[in-house]
Amino acid sequence: MNVYNRTTTDMIQGIFANDVTVVSQAITLIESTKPSHRTIANEIIESCLTKEVDTLRIGITGVPGAGKSTFIAQFGKLLTAQGKRVAVLTIDPSSSRTKGSILGDKTRMGELVKDPNAYIRPSPSGSSLGGVTRKTRESISILEAAGYDIIIIETMGVGQSETAVHNMVDFFLLLKLAGAGDELQGIKRGIVEMADAIVINKADGNNVQNAKLAQLELKRALHMFPPKENGWSTEILTCSALENIGLETIWHLITSYSETMKKSGFFKSNRKEQNENWLLQYLEQELLLDFYRNPTTKKMLPLLKQEVISGNISPFSAAEKLLEALRKS
Amino acid sequence: MNVYNRTTTDMIQGIFANDVTVVSQAITLIESTKPSHRTIANEIIESCLTKEVDTLRIGITGVPGAGKSTFIAQFGKLLTAQGKRVAVLTIDPSSSRTKGSILGDKTRMGELVKDPNAYIRPSPSGSSLGGVTRKTRESISILEAAGYDIIIIETMGVGQSETAVHNMVDFFLLLKLAGAGDELQGIKRGIVEMADAIVINKADGNNVQNAKLAQLELKRALHMFPPKENGWSTEILTCSALENIGLETIWHLITSYSETMKKSGFFKSNRKEQNENWLLQYLEQELLLDFYRNPTTKKMLPLLKQEVISGNISPFSAAEKLLEALRKS
Repeated sequence: MNVYNRTTTDMIQGIFANDVTVVSQAITLIESTKPSHRTIANEIIESCLTKEVDTLRIGITGVPGAGKSTFIAQFGKLLTAQGKRVAVLTIDPSSSRTKGSILGDKTRMGELVKDPNAYIRPSPSGSSLGGVTRKTRESISILEAAGYDIIIIETMGVGQSETAVHNMVDFFLLLKLAGAGDELQGIKRGIVEMADAIVINKADGNNVQNAKLAQLELKRALHMFPPKENGWSTEILTCSALENIGLETIWHLITSYSETMKKSGFFKSNRKEQNENWLLQYLEQELLLDFYRNPTTKKMLPLLKQEVISGNISPFSAAEKLLEALRKS
Repeated sequence: MNVYNRTTTDMIQGIFANDVTVVSQAITLIESTKPSHRTIANEIIESCLTKEVDTLRIGITGVPGAGKSTFIAQFGKLLTAQGKRVAVLTIDPSSSRTKGSILGDKTRMGELVKDPNAYIRPSPSGSSLGGVTRKTRESISILEAAGYDIIIIETMGVGQSETAVHNMVDFFLLLKLAGAGDELQGIKRGIVEMADAIVINKADGNNVQNAKLAQLELKRALHMFPPKENGWSTEILTCSALENIGLETIWHLITSYSETMKKSGFFKSNRKEQNENWLLQYLEQELLLDFYRNPTTKKMLPLLKQEVISGNISPFSAAEKLLEALRKS
């Protein structure tokens, strides 16, 4: 019996049966930092991982105002209308919003909230980027075991979480607005290179021409950049989430990407590589935390940093002094 | 007395007096992995760091065939003709070439080799990227103390060392060839975003028109990307290293960059941040090496990786098992 008066087996069965209450409780357990909760969460995740699933993980990013919520709401409805089951996780770098945003996100996503085949949840907040990403990644496993076919992960396009999300999805979509010139201002450097598709939203009314022009310019610009290692070149599309125009084309592109990558073997090898990377990255993070938590090295670090900045010691010798202290203590 | 029959004090004095033989010996000591050599090297570096210097560190990258050697040879001569003292370090990801390339590099760089105000040296090879970068970074300190004003670091544009080099220089230049369309094919993804300038080389003879077209296209493409955090937008220039055309404009651009960044304070704060990053990155690397060297975890890692790939365990639980084993042993 755990905090919810359910046995772990009950919870696993509930997830497999798509009992939404149990799914939510399981994700809350993942969020918990209590060791006893962690143990149950690990058991649940391991059971979830054993279930054979055929899912698609889509990352969607874009600066505030690009229309991400409307897009996801409409896009989600398009998918559920086709009989797909859709789960949406949103990650927000500002912890203040994350903490109180359940209602906020649900309001933002309009009718998708009421759809019985959709599940929306702000990603658990955490004290570190590592914490947030671990929890997001583990939430995906729960949602996939619960029978969701499409997992959408939304980020803000301005923080540190985009790389992490890019490393846990199959397809990464950048949503942007049309505007004259300087097309990618406001987007964090590096995000364009991660995108499998850039979609220019709000291509409606007076804005249609602007959007088409932006599409052309972006195509010309991105044409000059090397294709990704899987041979894919970033596609540029336009849409109007508000007027529900162009969303089917986007879905068609994503399915065609997924089919191509499944045929070439990249889809599978990419997921395999992502899992290996999570293992090593998490390990690295935790090893560093051990270092930062050690009282001796914690005290030494700011002093040695100052010595490095003053040019009294090389960064490498300073690091060696810290390592020596860590090994001794 | 060390391996060269010199005291450490003698060596430091030799470096400060720009005795080229001693400079080379000091860099060889840095390359050494013997603990006794390491101790002397650390002493030498710490003395070198105390010397006030006013230097400029320039990273130059480009795929094989872009004409890097000719460019550096001509550019170096331009600088020495102005009374500057120039040191060139080359980093090559293929260790085979690095090991036997001293003569190769010196031949490649033509007349610059004979210039008494120039110093050329292939960067020490190492078993890991961390090793190579530590040694390159420390070699820079030696060369700066020896009175070189401009330190040029050359990489191949295709490996892993570009990010490391970008993080140890003040200005990062990407050298490329003109070609119709697909302008940046062959360049590793991410390098364009690091470049402070992209220079289209071999803009001579029949190629001048091509180069100008490529310049125009690149300008249009890069205009759409956000400027760097320091406010700088990547400049696109053309040159012919072979015919010595356009090199003064490039030097003018670099000095104007350097002046702007010194005025804004970015130059100094960037170097400070780079040093802090070296400290933390090196620390991280060494902590990971401890993990990889541990016999218990070394044995467990491949097995757990397999479990993660088979979906029997989450990447995070696998990492925790490894950490537990490491802490116990």
